Amino acid sequence: MPTFEHVTLGQRVLFGAGKAAENLTAEVSRLGSKRIMVIAAEFEAQIAANVTTGIDVASFYDDVAPHVPIEKAEKARSTAAELGIDLLVCVGGGSTTGLAKAIAMTTGLPIIAVPTTYAGSEATNVWGLTEASRKTTGVDDRVLPVTVIYDAALTLSLPVDLSVASGLNALAHCVDSMWAPRADPINQALAAEGIRALNQGLPLIKDDPSNLLGREQALYGAYLSAVAFASAGSGMHHKICHVLGGAYNMPHAQTHATVLPYVLAFNAPYAADAEARIAAAFGTGNALNGLNTLRQTLNAPKALKDHGLVEENIPEAVRLILPAIPASNPRPVTEEKLEELLRSAYSGTTPGL
Amino acid sequence: MPTFEHVTLGQRVLFGAGKAAENLTAEVSRLGSKRIMVIAAEFEAQIAANVTTGIDVASFYDDVAPHVPIEKAEKARSTAAELGIDLLVCVGGGSTTGLAKAIAMTTGLPIIAVPTTYAGSEATNVWGLTEASRKTTGVDDRVLPVTVIYDAALTLSLPVDLSVASGLNALAHCVDSMWAPRADPINQALAAEGIRALNQGLPLIKDDPSNLLGREQALYGAYLSAVAFASAGSGMHHKICHVLGGAYNMPHAQTHATVLPYVLAFNAPYAADAEARIAAAFGTGNALNGLNTLRQTLNAPKALKDHGLVEENIPEAVRLILPAIPASNPRPVTEEKLEELLRSAYSGTTPGL
Repeated sequence: MPTFEHVTLGQRVLFGAGKAAENLTAEVSRLGSKRIMVIAAEFEAQIAANVTTGIDVASFYDDVAPHVPIEKAEKARSTAAELGIDLLVCVGGGSTTGLAKAIAMTTGLPIIAVPTTYAGSEATNVWGLTEASRKTTGVDDRVLPVTVIYDAALTLSLPVDLSVASGLNALAHCVDSMWAPRADPINQALAAEGIRALNQGLPLIKDDPSNLLGREQALYGAYLSAVAFASAGSGMHHKICHVLGGAYNMPHAQTHATVLPYVLAFNAPYAADAEARIAAAFGTGNALNGLNTLRQTLNAPKALKDHGLVEENIPEAVRLILPAIPASNPRPVTEEKLEELLRSAYSGTTPGL
Repeated sequence: MPTFEHVTLGQRVLFGAGKAAENLTAEVSRLGSKRIMVIAAEFEAQIAANVTTGIDVASFYDDVAPHVPIEKAEKARSTAAELGIDLLVCVGGGSTTGLAKAIAMTTGLPIIAVPTTYAGSEATNVWGLTEASRKTTGVDDRVLPVTVIYDAALTLSLPVDLSVASGLNALAHCVDSMWAPRADPINQALAAEGIRALNQGLPLIKDDPSNLLGREQALYGAYLSAVAFASAGSGMHHKICHVLGGAYNMPHAQTHATVLPYVLAFNAPYAADAEARIAAAFGTGNALNGLNTLRQTLNAPKALKDHGLVEENIPEAVRLILPAIPASNPRPVTEEKLEELLRSAYSGTTPGL
């Protein structure tokens, strides 16, 4: 019997390849904004210029850095105040969207986000700030962009490897949403749709990075993964990856891509409904087969030992991860089972065997 | 290549059988409301009393009528102003929710909706008012309830026939959302989830009206149908039913239940993706088979001639309906084809043969 609370975040999303400039012009006109700050990293200045040809820009702002250092946020906030800005337009990936959110959280300024990666931050009300190398995150509806303009043409320059890694990261959001603490059937339906889209899009990109249909499907899937994940929260998979990344400095995308099938193989027999949804989304009779087939097609990372994990650290990792596993996980996680899972992921044993 | 605009309406929904009073108390406390008007029709006064045991109520208001006559709306608005109301709680079906919306649209007061039927109005930003027997509808984000509390126990008294009719109406919203003017993959995914839930829930209710799981699935499906329909708009099916209802005074639910399979049979061969989504949601290999099986189980209405349509009116109906068919319809609709469809629905020929 489903008992749950689901919060839907109100947002307008526009999908259209090659339509970013046109859609942005229309949105700015709809909002009636007059003093616009466009935030884009230096290396994306040309994209930002192309996208904003139809609007008056009060300021192009490019002082963007990963994880939103607090000094950068404060400087950007002051600039926005000095210039009398009434709308933030961010063109870029997670760091750029993050800076816009940092401004919005203290000023209440609306954001139009134009993503160029599959990061998904544009579809959430989560902000992050880094002070003295400590990252703080929080939730505030004021940082949710009012409008997101998705244009797959802007993602064409994202290299294949990064696209695949980022796409698998989005896929992990979808799969983990099935049993995360606030998992509910609405999140599950959206996450399944995300899996369907990513499973279609990523192989097309792997085959041909300029395949616009593949890019669109991946972008759409990444959007849904963010929506589902923001609502459902972190499940077992993300808790494992968070510890591995934080304690052993393992690379984010590779860690996610490697760990995901082991978590799916572990939970699937205890989560029949989630398993069926994932399988259907992959278009196969079995969720794990679907994921393994996709990973093979994408030549995804296979073993944690290839990405910096040292075998001796596994027992410690188990002790760090175990208390973080959500009570919502469909299968009870013991120290022994978790160690087994990590050893398999370490060596790259075929998941599920 | 998907090019679309999707507006997601921000809303909190709580599902829990037997939990309405508890959830309402928590929501009122979260919103910090002090002067609450509870709107419920006289025949649902007991339900409203039970649900509001945990909150202070400034006024119980029961002057509710179908289609929200403007005089009733104005009287309710005055009462809310006189009493210094700061929150509207509506307990009931579409008419009750409609009155709360009529108050909210001029006062901006927040609404918590506690639905007792599968009408779905609580999940949309659509309002309706009737003046001099003419109904006006419109869209305004202020009328969207901030929170909806779904409690299947409150729907147990809904008679089986009405439950089935209302459930099939919700199902029609889901199916028609697949090809309505603003159909997009997000609406389609939510509509498919709605079909899945209604297909599970309605047979359980038919079998045993007190089956709480069936009631919950139906309520959940009805919620999703409203979300998808509000976003996608009216498709071919709803345009047909709207004309039949308006011009020949045919009963709403029976008309919808009868016409739906004919529209599905007509469009499905021209809408492969929608067909596949609907089929998967029914858990069958073929969308129309899935719908026909469900209709058989529910002993759904089969022929328009049984519900007041006169054969001689069919040519006129065709002329009235044809200009209203949305350009988005996947299959071109000719006068001849539409007449054929209506004649089949009139006589109750098995749809798709």
